[in-house]
Amino acid sequence: MNIKGEKHPEDREPRVRDLTEEESWQILSAARLARFVTVDEGEIDITPLNIFAADGRIYFRTAPGNKLTKLQLNPNVALETDKIEGAVAHSVVVRGSARLLTDPDETDRVASLPLSPWVHTDKLDFVEITPERITGRRFRLGD
Amino acid sequence: MNIKGEKHPEDREPRVRDLTEEESWQILSAARLARFVTVDEGEIDITPLNIFAADGRIYFRTAPGNKLTKLQLNPNVALETDKIEGAVAHSVVVRGSARLLTDPDETDRVASLPLSPWVHTDKLDFVEITPERITGRRFRLGD
Repeated sequence: MNIKGEKHPEDREPRVRDLTEEESWQILSAARLARFVTVDEGEIDITPLNIFAADGRIYFRTAPGNKLTKLQLNPNVALETDKIEGAVAHSVVVRGSARLLTDPDETDRVASLPLSPWVHTDKLDFVEITPERITGRRFRLGD
Repeated sequence: MNIKGEKHPEDREPRVRDLTEEESWQILSAARLARFVTVDEGEIDITPLNIFAADGRIYFRTAPGNKLTKLQLNPNVALETDKIEGAVAHSVVVRGSARLLTDPDETDRVASLPLSPWVHTDKLDFVEITPERITGRRFRLGD
């Protein structure tokens, strides 16, 4: 409350609120670190990696032969990125499909993105995620 | 290489290596922030939350009615925590089952842990994860 008995705008913010798709894209576009989730025969796998969002897609690079890219197309993946700044946190979840890029035109284009893999090996695969659904939440963190 | 042509110990560390279960528990025990993953009818969900590892179990608190706790017992969940320090990163993944704690003796015990929920509400559920498999990796991050 201020001296007039009005609530500070921050107090009106609910403890958790959904982000709009536009807000979620803003978080995604600024994000570099994310966790990539796959489910293979019921077993969940989670890998941290660096991402880059561009043109409505999300890209990452990974070592070839990695189980993430064993499938040329994985129709059911998810990716989460979160950011904590002081008492406010954002979390954005993308659900969609992942595709291994094999066309040289595509890999050349993605190679020009500022996309750094977690681990450098001589050769790296490029993976493109096509979002089907993007959800995001903004949290006012606990007292 | 040093002046004698010997490799610096850090150079001998592979780019990625698996952690032992003991090393993974060390990372888990020190971790506060993790991402919790569930799969409900094929749809992956990922939520950041605060955890506390104790006595071979992992605990978190969440708002009641949250879909994470809709099931009293969820037999197929995963949780990941990661830590980046300079050029070294660790990531630990726990796979197991999640159980909503309802016995007052259990909730009293867990309430005494230093476990802060992301979002405070009047009432909070306690969830216990019993690990079935714990894997961890240590990464030497890219050049």
